[in-house]
Amino acid sequence: MPRSAPARAPITSPAAATVFTTVLTQGPVSRVDVARRTGLSSAAVTKAARPFIEAGYLEELASAERTAPGAGRPASPLAIRPDREYFIGVKITGDDLIGVVTDLQAQIRVAKHHPLTSHDVDHVVRALVDLVAELLAGSAPDGATSFRDRAYCLGVAISGDVDRDTGVVRYSPFLGWRDVPLAELLEVSTGLATTLENDVKALTVAEQWFGEGVGASSFALVTVGTGIGSALVLDGRLVGGAHGVAGEIGHVPVAGMGADGPACHCGGTGCVEAIASTEAIVASARRVAGDPALTLDKAVARARAGDEPLRAVFATAGHAIGLGLAALVNLFGPERVVVSGEGVATYDLFEDQIRRTFAEQAFGSAARCGLVIRPLPFEEWARGAAAVAVQSLFVSDRL
Amino acid sequence: MPRSAPARAPITSPAAATVFTTVLTQGPVSRVDVARRTGLSSAAVTKAARPFIEAGYLEELASAERTAPGAGRPASPLAIRPDREYFIGVKITGDDLIGVVTDLQAQIRVAKHHPLTSHDVDHVVRALVDLVAELLAGSAPDGATSFRDRAYCLGVAISGDVDRDTGVVRYSPFLGWRDVPLAELLEVSTGLATTLENDVKALTVAEQWFGEGVGASSFALVTVGTGIGSALVLDGRLVGGAHGVAGEIGHVPVAGMGADGPACHCGGTGCVEAIASTEAIVASARRVAGDPALTLDKAVARARAGDEPLRAVFATAGHAIGLGLAALVNLFGPERVVVSGEGVATYDLFEDQIRRTFAEQAFGSAARCGLVIRPLPFEEWARGAAAVAVQSLFVSDRL
Repeated sequence: MPRSAPARAPITSPAAATVFTTVLTQGPVSRVDVARRTGLSSAAVTKAARPFIEAGYLEELASAERTAPGAGRPASPLAIRPDREYFIGVKITGDDLIGVVTDLQAQIRVAKHHPLTSHDVDHVVRALVDLVAELLAGSAPDGATSFRDRAYCLGVAISGDVDRDTGVVRYSPFLGWRDVPLAELLEVSTGLATTLENDVKALTVAEQWFGEGVGASSFALVTVGTGIGSALVLDGRLVGGAHGVAGEIGHVPVAGMGADGPACHCGGTGCVEAIASTEAIVASARRVAGDPALTLDKAVARARAGDEPLRAVFATAGHAIGLGLAALVNLFGPERVVVSGEGVATYDLFEDQIRRTFAEQAFGSAARCGLVIRPLPFEEWARGAAAVAVQSLFVSDRL
Repeated sequence: MPRSAPARAPITSPAAATVFTTVLTQGPVSRVDVARRTGLSSAAVTKAARPFIEAGYLEELASAERTAPGAGRPASPLAIRPDREYFIGVKITGDDLIGVVTDLQAQIRVAKHHPLTSHDVDHVVRALVDLVAELLAGSAPDGATSFRDRAYCLGVAISGDVDRDTGVVRYSPFLGWRDVPLAELLEVSTGLATTLENDVKALTVAEQWFGEGVGASSFALVTVGTGIGSALVLDGRLVGGAHGVAGEIGHVPVAGMGADGPACHCGGTGCVEAIASTEAIVASARRVAGDPALTLDKAVARARAGDEPLRAVFATAGHAIGLGLAALVNLFGPERVVVSGEGVATYDLFEDQIRRTFAEQAFGSAARCGLVIRPLPFEEWARGAAAVAVQSLFVSDRL
């Protein structure tokens, strides 16, 4: 349980949640606009906003326009006070922990890395508790308070099969974990309300609330790197899949015809991931270079220096990603797609081919889907975890 | 405007619509179960059901169980009276009109075909008006009334870009039409309230309300034939695509890598439709048989008789369809998928390969998606149009 805090975000009704979310993700915004966007009455918006103003989460900005005397109160926009509460986000990889402190709008205030020397659950929990303690000891911008004084929620992101509702890591291939009740272990040892989420889904939350997803009826986030995955958001809801699987763009079989498609670890053939994952790129690069010890960094350097066979390896990967994107967009029709992930750090070698293939294969007006391709610093994964912690404000027992 | 009919389905409130839809698609069902499934109170269900019973749309069945004296009224299930209203559905193809009369549950009562000798709008409208008149002249099962006495709504299904809201055919490739206000033309000449819908979407409505989609949180309908398309339904809503494109499983690039993928009419390469449409199958069959005049029927007959190269052509098409299904299911995760369409009439030549490929390429538990593969008689398309007409009861101005 979180430490008791009398003046925390007073999300006590669905209307309160709606008004606070609207200002949080779209503010500053006038009460009239909040009413228009949410379908609530102006009176209901004013009533719902008041406790947030009293608790310091929202403020009224000075109105830009002066209204004529007698024309009623000026329409002072409502704005979030981002430093009212801080959130801790931690991403767990096979090699390290990346932790951040963010404000209410998931803006990173400080970031720290910890190497992981073991995948033992106790070891990871202890390392995570240490990291959280270090993060909380930092000073808020006012200099007078530490983050600890205004942080109640921890978000943790991890790749694999994660049950957010119960806080259990059902399966983590990188850590070799099965059925680890990580959220409970961390709540006990940190005192913070802890929410666990799959890392791609966490990143999607950050994008949905504080990034490209704001204002989009539907969007997809695609991550490219060691694995290739995606998350689809439709009408504000993540598509989860009736059987627990959805968004597996890495397993769209773009080279599934004929016998020459590469085998994929999933048991299929010709999957995007079997062509464009970091591992697949390194394997292809070693093959074309005739150097079984070639590293990714060296392959990237040589491709950037103009090595044509190596450039072709990256172009092939970009082509496979572009085909996967076309499949996604032709089937699902999102308004926008964000392509990101550590693999996009070398996106100068990919981007042209991704865009060209996508343009060729997108069906009709599906080509109008906005395509944002950008690198993803590792801190962003931790920011996604923090965004999940922000979101946990709205799913607490208080509602 | 429909002819006035004092006792038509009294869908006068959202609660009335919810109760009627529940009994229509899931009945017979007790009031208690309707309340449980809809979240309405028992009193609200009883209140909402009464006008439908009075107007003859619903009835109370005799309760199967006798309750003890004093235990209150027995829980008589509510059931639809399917013959209370009839609906006309017409599918327009490039060659003919297929028309049906259905009851309230979209069960076909009579079907008729009319050849189309011209694609001229006036000609098609006249042929359609004649067909509707013939259909309406038929006798209802009671022998005493004609369908005309209880039919007020017409649904029309057509492939291509159709605007259901305005009733305009924006683009029909088979007819060569652009921006034809077909619903208005037909309302004027038939006196029936007319709803126009894309044919695959219409088929999806029939499946969603009266077929495999009943009770599924999400499902997809895939049609295979001259074209290959699909429709996705999530939480009862058709996924429409932010830019108007969604469900284009025919344009998933399953042979998009390498230079050997076949060109698709969409401008892309290696699309499912470029391998598995009827046209693509005939072209491949002609090539392997060395017979440029080979027909589909003859290719089917020879494949069924054991011609291995021709069997391989159908297996390749089945493989491409299976890959497209895997892409759909890995990305979207529907509970069930129905594969149908006129191309599935030869499904003995496809089905094994579709299932084998799907099983190999479905990612993890996505393989648990129920896969129904079945032929689609042409009347089913018209039934889909009638289901759209049934649905139009619920979107009238009366709500």
